[in-house]
Amino acid sequence: MPKRNAFYAQSGGVTAVINASACGLIETARANKGQMGKVLVGRNGILGALNEELIDTSKESKKDIAGLRSTPGGAFGSCRFKLKSLQEDAREYQRLIEVFQAHDIGYFFYNGGGDSQDTANKVSQLGKQMGYPLQAIGVPKTVDNDLPFTDTCPGFGSVAKYVATSTKEAALDVESMCETSTKVFVLEVMGRHAGWIAAAGALAQEQPGDAPHIILLPEVAFNKKAFLAKVKETVRGKGFCVIVVSEGARYANGKFLGESGAAKDAFGHAQLGGVAPTIANMIKDALGYKYHWAVADYLQRSARHLASATDVEQAYALGKAAVEFALAGKTAVMPTIVRTNDQPYRWKIGEAKLSKVANVERFMPKGYISKDGFGITAKARRYLAPLIAGEDYPKFNHGVPEYVRLKNQLVAKKLPTKW
Amino acid sequence: MPKRNAFYAQSGGVTAVINASACGLIETARANKGQMGKVLVGRNGILGALNEELIDTSKESKKDIAGLRSTPGGAFGSCRFKLKSLQEDAREYQRLIEVFQAHDIGYFFYNGGGDSQDTANKVSQLGKQMGYPLQAIGVPKTVDNDLPFTDTCPGFGSVAKYVATSTKEAALDVESMCETSTKVFVLEVMGRHAGWIAAAGALAQEQPGDAPHIILLPEVAFNKKAFLAKVKETVRGKGFCVIVVSEGARYANGKFLGESGAAKDAFGHAQLGGVAPTIANMIKDALGYKYHWAVADYLQRSARHLASATDVEQAYALGKAAVEFALAGKTAVMPTIVRTNDQPYRWKIGEAKLSKVANVERFMPKGYISKDGFGITAKARRYLAPLIAGEDYPKFNHGVPEYVRLKNQLVAKKLPTKW
Repeated sequence: MPKRNAFYAQSGGVTAVINASACGLIETARANKGQMGKVLVGRNGILGALNEELIDTSKESKKDIAGLRSTPGGAFGSCRFKLKSLQEDAREYQRLIEVFQAHDIGYFFYNGGGDSQDTANKVSQLGKQMGYPLQAIGVPKTVDNDLPFTDTCPGFGSVAKYVATSTKEAALDVESMCETSTKVFVLEVMGRHAGWIAAAGALAQEQPGDAPHIILLPEVAFNKKAFLAKVKETVRGKGFCVIVVSEGARYANGKFLGESGAAKDAFGHAQLGGVAPTIANMIKDALGYKYHWAVADYLQRSARHLASATDVEQAYALGKAAVEFALAGKTAVMPTIVRTNDQPYRWKIGEAKLSKVANVERFMPKGYISKDGFGITAKARRYLAPLIAGEDYPKFNHGVPEYVRLKNQLVAKKLPTKW
Repeated sequence: MPKRNAFYAQSGGVTAVINASACGLIETARANKGQMGKVLVGRNGILGALNEELIDTSKESKKDIAGLRSTPGGAFGSCRFKLKSLQEDAREYQRLIEVFQAHDIGYFFYNGGGDSQDTANKVSQLGKQMGYPLQAIGVPKTVDNDLPFTDTCPGFGSVAKYVATSTKEAALDVESMCETSTKVFVLEVMGRHAGWIAAAGALAQEQPGDAPHIILLPEVAFNKKAFLAKVKETVRGKGFCVIVVSEGARYANGKFLGESGAAKDAFGHAQLGGVAPTIANMIKDALGYKYHWAVADYLQRSARHLASATDVEQAYALGKAAVEFALAGKTAVMPTIVRTNDQPYRWKIGEAKLSKVANVERFMPKGYISKDGFGITAKARRYLAPLIAGEDYPKFNHGVPEYVRLKNQLVAKKLPTKW
């Protein structure tokens, strides 16, 4: 049987380590070139497949591919683009199959979150229906850490390390000045539905009572009265109060604290941002404390300079496993991280069926959230701590990190039709 | 002549390396214990002197003092507290002298920005007037980099490295996604009057045209029309636009873009913050682009995990030089950094008179700002680049940096009066 090419695409919000997965995948494909052809990558994610804009990774040097391991962002472009349902519009899927056929693609690797695993699953189904042999393998990725069946998702550990470190550093700053200046500091972090990222702020604590003093999770309905009482008590006791708030923090009626208006993204999600100033002003109005706030936004998910070594290693391993799964004949599966031991942390690669992963969100379990709702439990800490362990610094050049920029050369189009 | 004690205080906003200056100062004093007594530190800065709350650094271990070199924030507490003028109220100065006399303090080291150098100068004058022999030495510190007579100010190089690195990382993120998602990213950084920090964002560029595409400096009056035209041109040409904006960016009439209202700090400065969302919304309204924005706030000035090795070294050297100046009999001076060569960067310690440093602000020179006002020149780049060179990572423990926490034991009060 002649060897077939592979298609890989990055999907949705990028991370500090999604390119590490690409690195693991491409390096492993190259190491198995007897069995697998070229790795063609969608320019700007799945749009590249629809538009037949396929990047030929065989044109990239070994050094540049290796450099992906320590380069944040999406080196081939990613996109927010959700395919319609098969019932609603099968044409998108048919076009994908048409492009794959034209380029002799037998493997479909889709690197993304829940929505993307769903897409990969549908593509695999449609391939079967259309009689086109295609193995679809999902590669997990999301800073939100909300995919089921895997101990963690690549991208999360590095954001968690960034948030824990930044919280620890900013808390030292606020504490130094609180006698005469800022008493309340609010850091807004990502996490639309699940509070994993905000929860990781707690890893800044060395001892009980250390900053952050309050964590606001989407999983806990915001109670203004209890919140303000806790801020007041903390400032009275400690002299200052550090708060980590998830962008998805919300009232009991489901309304986001930081809802900015009508803007919705391609997935129909409301555009968030601005919960930190909202919270800070709420405190100022009620208690009169001087405040500062920060919104980390993209800085947190692109901070490759502070990546978790564990996260980088897992991201690479999952990319590698995806190719190994494909070569072993598997389809409609996603490699996962299986925790085999807590302390010391040990893990191995497992596998989950895409049909089960798709569109299931994993929230913080009740047992991970402290009784008052403003912190995490020892159990949560035991889960989170190993995910941020280890440093994996990029090389620096002239004081800034040296990140690779690929050639991203497209293969010649073969189809007469445009999308 | 019996050896006399030293008083040291941290003043104003803290930085990633102000403790490195304290480390240099205390270690050098200890190395010269035949000539200099204890280093007593003001708890919460100069307030500690007024309140006779003096931290006895001789109680701290050698290891903890060494650890200050890599600990951000102000380890003894700092404050925003400006002494009145001598004419207006001499009592504060008289109280300082009274406390210094009670604790046999012959050296006054004040670690801060322009306001603090002014205070140190006045204390030195009053000591002379009151016939109390006191040597006052300023130690420069300010992330704003706005002190005159010194090549740079400790704290700035590390913020500059943080801003350049974060801009480079976030730009990769935005570029990955711009086809279908965010097209404009705005990062708000510190710098109330001087644009040095925002200008450092340009060090993210490897080639002309790289992000950041627009830098908004306080030194250049904001021109909405020209700005929006540049954003549009950049998005059309590059597909995305990255903007670094100084919190002090302002209109020609002096009004800050991010003016949040009436809040003023102890120095009578308006409390800023929020220029990033202001700018982002302005773009959305005029051009309709999807945006994201980040406000780094305290994260930037406390990011010891990403400190510039050059900055750490200079901060330490200036603390050391302050003690050496004192032991050489100098007073009313501040050690400075003198650049002796650009490439490779070489520097040595110089000195400036406090009377000349006090309350003079150094802005970005015209020759450092590009013609269109949205970027920096090659000359500015040559000046800035060496200041962010080198990495000086703190030790990490369980995934987060290990920072020291001192005992901060106070010496017994000797005065019958409270302040």
